[in-house]
Amino acid sequence: MLIKRLVSSFVPSSGFSSSGGPRILKTGDILRQTRTFSELDVLEYAKVSYDSNPLHFDSKCAQNAGFEAQLVHGMLVAALFPRIISSHFPGAIYVSQSLNFKLPVYIGDEIVGEIQATNIKENKKRHVAKFATKCFKNGGDLVIDGEAMAVLPTLAVEEASM
Amino acid sequence: MLIKRLVSSFVPSSGFSSSGGPRILKTGDILRQTRTFSELDVLEYAKVSYDSNPLHFDSKCAQNAGFEAQLVHGMLVAALFPRIISSHFPGAIYVSQSLNFKLPVYIGDEIVGEIQATNIKENKKRHVAKFATKCFKNGGDLVIDGEAMAVLPTLAVEEASM
Repeated sequence: MLIKRLVSSFVPSSGFSSSGGPRILKTGDILRQTRTFSELDVLEYAKVSYDSNPLHFDSKCAQNAGFEAQLVHGMLVAALFPRIISSHFPGAIYVSQSLNFKLPVYIGDEIVGEIQATNIKENKKRHVAKFATKCFKNGGDLVIDGEAMAVLPTLAVEEASM
Repeated sequence: MLIKRLVSSFVPSSGFSSSGGPRILKTGDILRQTRTFSELDVLEYAKVSYDSNPLHFDSKCAQNAGFEAQLVHGMLVAALFPRIISSHFPGAIYVSQSLNFKLPVYIGDEIVGEIQATNIKENKKRHVAKFATKCFKNGGDLVIDGEAMAVLPTLAVEEASM
């Protein structure tokens, strides 16, 4: 089921050369995953987060606030970022994240989450990576914009587990 | 069950005067909720976010990374912030959030989430509020630090639904 609902891709920066070995993360590289959130996802997220804002359940409330329909929780959509990081770098430690919620996400919207490495430093045999983190819908409309920092145990990019 | 696991409080700024009417949010006011995350919470959050970083499930992996035990997902802990906002201001629209993860959160840690209004502006009959957002454990150790912005339909502070 997860395989159907999550699609993952790696877009190397222009300097990437395939040598047959493991892919090594470099500045400029982009990792993407695509997910469509269901009504059940919103319900399950509300249960575990205790966030039952009526905007997520009451279409009239959402419409009165200027939206087309009830919204997917912004923090559930934003969870794509640590999910992308940890699925490619298991054991990664999440250090910081900024999030600007630009457009509403509705149930059924196909969301592309994208992280792009903007800076990588080595520190005590671990790697501190900064990422530009964005979500898009409708083929390019910016939904969430922000930045993340994470400590990666290695720069070798694992295939994302689905 | 939720009542046992979530405790909510409102700490008015010094200028607050109780007039018997609804509490009106003012700059300086603090809203707090306390929650302890369980192993089941971590499992349920991993299911809905697809984030199965071994740091959350494998105590050896967590210990190798320098932690005492497996971690609660940072984004699940941070979900306290929109939960506090939306439980006191149903229909609030989340605009932005910054998150700095300062200390690990372990299963069973009692976490106090706190939002303090730092700026409130009126815009087209709605209220744009900025909050300092913090989580603490052990009676005062800073776990998450950041800021949030939300559009509130009203400044009247509802009792948080549990």
